[in-house]
This record gives sequence, structure tokens and C-alpha cells, in this order.
Amino acid sequence: MAKLTPRSEDYSKWYNELVIQTGMAENSKVRGCMVIKPYGYAIWEKMQAELDRMFKETGHQNAYFPLFVPKSLFEAEEKNAEGFAKECAVVTHYRLKNDPENKGKLIVDPEAKLEEELVVRPTSEAIIWSTYKNWIQSYRDLPILINQWANVVRWEMRTRLFLRTAEFLWQEGHTAHATKEEAMEEATKMLDVYTRFVENFMAIPVIQGAKTESERFAGAEETFCIEALMQDGKALQAGTSHFLGQNFAKAFDVKFTSNQGKLEYVWATSWGVSTRLIGALIMTHSDDSGLVLPPNLAPIQVVIVPIYKNKEQQNAIFECANKIVDGLQKEGISVKFDDDDKVKPGWKFNEYELKGVPLRIAIGPRDLENRQVELVRRDTLEKSYEKIEGLPMLIKSKLTEIQQNIFQRALDFRNQHITEVSTYEEFKEVLENKGGFVSAYWDGSAETEEKIKDDTKATIRCIPFEEVDLKNKTDFYSGQAAKYKVLFAKAY
Amino acid sequence: MAKLTPRSEDYSKWYNELVIQTGMAENSKVRGCMVIKPYGYAIWEKMQAELDRMFKETGHQNAYFPLFVPKSLFEAEEKNAEGFAKECAVVTHYRLKNDPENKGKLIVDPEAKLEEELVVRPTSEAIIWSTYKNWIQSYRDLPILINQWANVVRWEMRTRLFLRTAEFLWQEGHTAHATKEEAMEEATKMLDVYTRFVENFMAIPVIQGAKTESERFAGAEETFCIEALMQDGKALQAGTSHFLGQNFAKAFDVKFTSNQGKLEYVWATSWGVSTRLIGALIMTHSDDSGLVLPPNLAPIQVVIVPIYKNKEQQNAIFECANKIVDGLQKEGISVKFDDDDKVKPGWKFNEYELKGVPLRIAIGPRDLENRQVELVRRDTLEKSYEKIEGLPMLIKSKLTEIQQNIFQRALDFRNQHITEVSTYEEFKEVLENKGGFVSAYWDGSAETEEKIKDDTKATIRCIPFEEVDLKNKTDFYSGQAAKYKVLFAKAY
Repeated sequence: MAKLTPRSEDYSKWYNELVIQTGMAENSKVRGCMVIKPYGYAIWEKMQAELDRMFKETGHQNAYFPLFVPKSLFEAEEKNAEGFAKECAVVTHYRLKNDPENKGKLIVDPEAKLEEELVVRPTSEAIIWSTYKNWIQSYRDLPILINQWANVVRWEMRTRLFLRTAEFLWQEGHTAHATKEEAMEEATKMLDVYTRFVENFMAIPVIQGAKTESERFAGAEETFCIEALMQDGKALQAGTSHFLGQNFAKAFDVKFTSNQGKLEYVWATSWGVSTRLIGALIMTHSDDSGLVLPPNLAPIQVVIVPIYKNKEQQNAIFECANKIVDGLQKEGISVKFDDDDKVKPGWKFNEYELKGVPLRIAIGPRDLENRQVELVRRDTLEKSYEKIEGLPMLIKSKLTEIQQNIFQRALDFRNQHITEVSTYEEFKEVLENKGGFVSAYWDGSAETEEKIKDDTKATIRCIPFEEVDLKNKTDFYSGQAAKYKVLFAKAY
Repeated sequence: MAKLTPRSEDYSKWYNELVIQTGMAENSKVRGCMVIKPYGYAIWEKMQAELDRMFKETGHQNAYFPLFVPKSLFEAEEKNAEGFAKECAVVTHYRLKNDPENKGKLIVDPEAKLEEELVVRPTSEAIIWSTYKNWIQSYRDLPILINQWANVVRWEMRTRLFLRTAEFLWQEGHTAHATKEEAMEEATKMLDVYTRFVENFMAIPVIQGAKTESERFAGAEETFCIEALMQDGKALQAGTSHFLGQNFAKAFDVKFTSNQGKLEYVWATSWGVSTRLIGALIMTHSDDSGLVLPPNLAPIQVVIVPIYKNKEQQNAIFECANKIVDGLQKEGISVKFDDDDKVKPGWKFNEYELKGVPLRIAIGPRDLENRQVELVRRDTLEKSYEKIEGLPMLIKSKLTEIQQNIFQRALDFRNQHITEVSTYEEFKEVLENKGGFVSAYWDGSAETEEKIKDDTKATIRCIPFEEVDLKNKTDFYSGQAAKYKVLFAKAY
């Protein structure tokens, strides 16, 4: 196993090597599409299970809508169409035929051209709202609270494993409401669900806020987001929840009779998180030795490595290890006893460190004599010796401790990397040397936002949800009266 | 709610009405693609959870491969390519642009034509085996036991909800092995997994067997299948498991060094079941009043309907119902207390009958006095009065009984519809009047098989796994010496 490039040397290279070497994902033979390998997919499954539970707990049901969006539906909501038109995979034919000039080869059959082209969904508002039209007549049909687990395709030119791929997996919630207030409440409620999930389950601290107009989802009236900070000082949008107003209802003519008997347009939200979060997970916690996984998401929470020189020792240690396995499983802990005798313990230590297994137990002959095991925490690489008696409860509390510790560590780092500035010089200096979020007053104009972006590549990540006194405050760039206090950063 | 067309009048119409009225699925605006609505999707989720558990129990891991297959990979395994070429959705472009002649409309951007067309996967052998090539060098890398949950697209001309749709959801297992024996064992093991799942979980009896050459999966050496019988006497292929030999290994040049140091081609299997099984579920158990669901798959296992005339009665009945809910939930039973006061009990009875809820509890004032409830079984429509005390255990055993009863009922029906014939006259007579499986000796020739198919639309559903004495037996059609005893049927 090759050593990882240190983060300080080349963060981007470290990231790619880590994803490949841990067996989480790899590039496929399809431009920009990845293969999610079993170790990466196991993490995604754990994320799905928890999110799905949270969605159902908040009253949502799953459903499934078509992969394809007919062009005429796709273009119905103009802003949404404009936003995604440039990165759409388009199906134009429905058949291949033998190439008459090349035996064994196939060509697109020109006679099987579709009357109307089909867009592979980059997001499903269009197909879903054209369906909701038939589901909604009266206020009694509302709200509709539906989520979909699906693959989507956005033809990105520059792609990176998990972070930006042409095809990715996600969930997309699409809800319909009778009133603006109710839709707005849903949008913020789901942002809170995402926040709790990302912080408590993935141990990634986030900042909640609203996007500026230029950063909004195409077709939304408001985009709420949670923003995380990666170790290299770049921000990452970890989830978004959109208040769509009546835009899609108007585009697809979805009206309902209110309880006062009036015909009104329906209010909408949509919200999603994707496999991109796995990229955030990696770049929040991991180190030069490999992945660091929060126990809540680790496919293997504890690994046991036996160390022995002869059959007699092996028998005694295996017996002990199997008892420990039983004890841990009874506590609901996922444990692997690595009894493979074709590789050395040292190789295993590296392997599980690379893969981010939160706790490693090693048992040798002397440990057995002392009725103890060697325990190593992946997050701190701290080693200790622990009595075998009572081990399951100790492990359980260590796992909780690790979950909290890596969150706290990420939170401290994030908080140390929010820097207030009041001049453009300071702003550029912080961006260049320290990185992270830069907190500053903004005049609210798209012009200022764009100039700063062109000049520094930093964008407004969000307008945080917090009361700010704007009296006598001015924009650090334009000098105009401030309308918001915002967070800038370079971002993934 | 409209009444369903009786099955005896028009089976196909009954089926469609049932799917629509229960809210399981509907046709979408995309030709041949369906929307799986929450009630249908909840059943699919239960199927997924159980299958996924069974796959993991047998050592498989999940992963995810790209939606798109580049044409050059798609055509590599010739038979597979030939089998699917005629029903492929093909992506040829990656961008739309504004239509200069039609404001607000979009057209495919001719400048964004892909160098190589992408086929939307109809099945994933090609993309997966082109990936396995890089994963396999030595016998130590084998076996690979991977499953994928995914959507696939096959451009069918005549589609029906769940049974045959252009896009459908499925799982596809793709395994790689060092020896022929091991691959063959895997293929039959997974057929057994499907059999246990479909029989024990979905309560659908099936017959295991092998497909004839003409009915095999394109690219397989052997296709094993489970065949079910629908109420209208037509068969339905409920799952397939393929022994792929070394066909894909050769097409994608996937070799490994054996433990004897020889370079050999890898052996393969693939296996899948899909949302089509939901169609089989409906057509195995349901009746003219609606869906009949096996308790194992029912999103709601028990519904409680209160009957009252005044507030006082309501309070007392709600209190009692809530206690029953608690008691049932403690036993892991999924229960719904329908306290909606805007619809009448009679309407609710019809609704839950239509939706196939296995047990319905009704509680009225007199029941309360007698400390009893009215209990109606969906499978038999039998009504009984049961003491409230001890109700959870009674319900639990009733659910088990219903699960067994509907399986037994379907098994009896299936067994009554396997008819042995020895002449072609008998064969046609049975097909026309009785339907079901027709058991007969076959000479093993594709010619005989095809003539029978052209003449009667019946196909050989499978060659059942059973020892048969073929001595002196002749084909009922050709009079030639028999090679197999097979099951014919008209099929979905």
C-alpha cells in the first residue's frame, strides 16, 4: 500500500489518493461518472438509513418519478430550464442497429429518432410538478410531502470523485402546500433536519443561512443552505432547501380550491443532499494516515487484530477475541475480527488506519496473560491498555467520545477560521493566507458580489440566520451602506 | 371511489384499475415510464429491505456503477449487445440551447454532440465487467460478490404498470469467480434466495427451472428462473439468475492468475428481480374488492376504524383504540388508527379493503360495552368478534395465519393448473380453456419450440429441476424422442 501524499504538500492529491486507496470510489470509463465501491457505498447506506428515518419522522413518504424529462416539460419553468440547459444529457434515439460497414459494431438507428427529446433529470421539479397537477384539486389534497431517492445527471466539465460528478446519487424532497407560510416553514424545517443529520451523525459543523440571489437554485425564491468548512480552508455547500414560491405551480398550472372556495396556485419547496456529502466527510475529519470516520457512519466501528507466534497462542487468542466479538455485538457495535493469517499485524494496522476504523483492538500473548487488550483510537492515535472485563461498555463510551471529539475538533477549526474584516485589503489577505470564512458587511448588490468574485474567486456562501445591527455599517468593498453581514469563502 | 371491473369480465382492466385506485402507480408523461406512488413504493421498500438482508447474509455487498454505458463497451459482448440493441435509450448530446426561432423554447445544441454515444443501461454486465477488469489480477481477488440497486431502461413498445415499463427499478447481482463450479453454485444459490423470498415473504409459489436456449438472457450460458402463475392462467417470470460462463470475461479480457500460477478467464454470474414482482403480487392474491397483501409486505398490517355517534362515545372509543395501538406496536405490528371524522366508517371499510390491509378492527359503543372488537380478515373477508384482552397476541397469530393461507391458496391454484398432456390437441385445448402450466415432453429442438409458439403463443417457461425418466418418451408435437419434460404457458 502506497503512502498518502501529505495534506500540506498537495491537498487535492491527498484527497484523490485517499478515496482510491480506501476503496471508496474510482473513476469509471464514462466521462465524469464514478463507480462507488463497496466501502464508499456502505457509508452512503448508513447516511441513507438515518436520513430516511428523519424524513419519515417528519411526515414524508418516498415515491419514484421517471428518469427522463420530456423537453417540453423541462423548458416550462424558464429559470429552472435556463439554469440546467447547459449541462443536460439528452436522449434523442431509442434504438441501435448493426453497423453495415463494421461487422460486430453498432450505430444509432436514424429511424429510431424520438419525436421529442428526453432530458436525463438533473433535478426533478419539472417532472414532479407536471405530475402533481393531477394530484391536486382541493386544499384537502395538501400538503403533499414526498421524497425521492434517485440518480441525477449534470454534465459537469471538471469532475472530482464524490464532490462533482456527472452522475450522482441523492435524495430530493418535493412538497406542495396551501399557503406561503406553510411552505416556508417546511423549507426551514428540512434545513434543520439536514443540520441535525450533518452535525450529529456526520460530525460536520455547519452554518445555516440563505443564499444570495446569484447563488440561488434556478427557479427558487429563496435557497437556504448549510455550509461546512474543509481542512484546506475552502467551504462546501452541504445541503440546500428551497422555497420555490408559486413558480412551478404557475409553470405547470397547478391550482387548488382553498377552504374558502377560491382557486389558488400551490406553494412549493424542494430540498436535497447527495453523495457529495461523502467528500465533505473525508475533508472534514481525515488526516495524513487516511480516513477518520465518525462512529455513527463507520461500516466497521471496531476491528480486532490478533498477534501470535504459534498454534497454541493462536487458539487462546482467537477464543478470547471471539468472546469480545460477542460482547460487542450484544451492545449493537459493528465489529470485525480480522483472523486472516496471510498478512502481518502491522499491515493490518495500516489498512484499518487508512480505512478510518474508529477503534482498533490488538491482542497478543502477553495481553492475554494480563487479561487486557491494546486499544488505539483512530481520531487521536492514542494507545491504551484496557481490561477485558467490562470492555463492551468501555468501547461503547469511547465510540461516543470519538464522535463528540471529532465534531468538537472540526468545530474549533471552523470557528478559528471565521475572520471578520472591514477592508478589502484585509479581505484579500485573509483569503490568501489563512483561508476559511470571511465575515463582512455587504451592500446587497449583485455588482459588488460579482466584482469580488472575479477578483478573488471568493463567493458569498451565505447570509447567516442571525440578527445583525447594520446601523452605520458599510460594505468593505463598495463603501455603500450595508444591507447584510455575510460569509465569503472560496468553495468546492 | 369507483367499483373495480370484476376479474371475470376483463382481467387486464381490473388490474389497471386496481393499480390506479389503490394509489400504487400511474402512467407518467414520459412514454412507457411510470410514477411509483407512495403506497406502491412502500411495498417496494419492504421488498428491498428483506432482499438486501438476504443478499448480505449470503456475503454480498452493495456498490454503484454508472447509469451510462459507452457504445464501445456496450457492443463488446456481442450476444448481450444484440439482445438489447433494439430497445436502448441513447444519449447523443450533452447540452440544450435557446431556440433562436422560438423564444422560451430549447433545442438540442448541435455543437454539443458526444464523440461516443452513451446507452442508458438496460442491464449492467458491460459497464461492470469493464470495471472488474481492473479489480482482478489474482485468485486472491476472487470471488467478487456485488449487488447494485438501480434503475434500468428498456425501450418497450407495449408497456403495462409494473409488469413492463420502459424504466424500472431492480437489483442486479454481478459476481466473479475462479472456477466454473463456484459460479454455478452461486447462480443456483441466488435462485434459492429468490425462491425463499418470493414464497415466504411475498407468498407467491414458484417453480424453479432452467430456460431453454431461446429464452436465455442475452450473453448467458444458462438462465435459471422462478416461474409463478397468475390468476388468469398466465405465467410470470418472477426472477432470473444467470450463469454467464466466461463470456463477459472474454469480451472484456478479464483474466486472473490461479493458485497454480496459470492465467485464466474469470467465471461470472448475474441475477436480478425488479418492480415487476409487484405486478406478480397483485395478480397472485387480489380479488374483485381490491388488493390482498401478505402481512409481511403490507405497509399497514392492521387498521382500526372507530364507530361513534357522539362526543362521549368518541372519547371512550378513542381511548380504547389508542391502547390497542400501543399494544400492537409493542409486538412490532404496523397499525393505523384512522380517526378522520370527515369520512364515514363504511367508506373507510371499502378503502382499506381496496388497499389490501390484512386485518381491520372496528370498535363501536356496543363493542366497548362487551370489551370486544369486530375483526375482519382481508383474505377471506371473514368477520369475528374478539376480546380486547389478549388482542395483540391474537392479531399476531392471525397475521401469520393470513400469510400462510394466501400462500396455500395460491399454491393450490397453481397445482390445479399444471396439466400433463401427451397430444398437441390436448395441449391446445388446455391452453385455450383451462390455462396455466402445461407439462409435456419436448424433443429439445428450437424448431419445435418456435412452431408451437407461433401457433399458440405459448412458450417453454422452464425445464423444471426434477429427475425425469425419459425412456420411451416422445415429444407431443414432433413425435421425436423426448429430451426434457418442460412447462409451457402463455406468459406476461
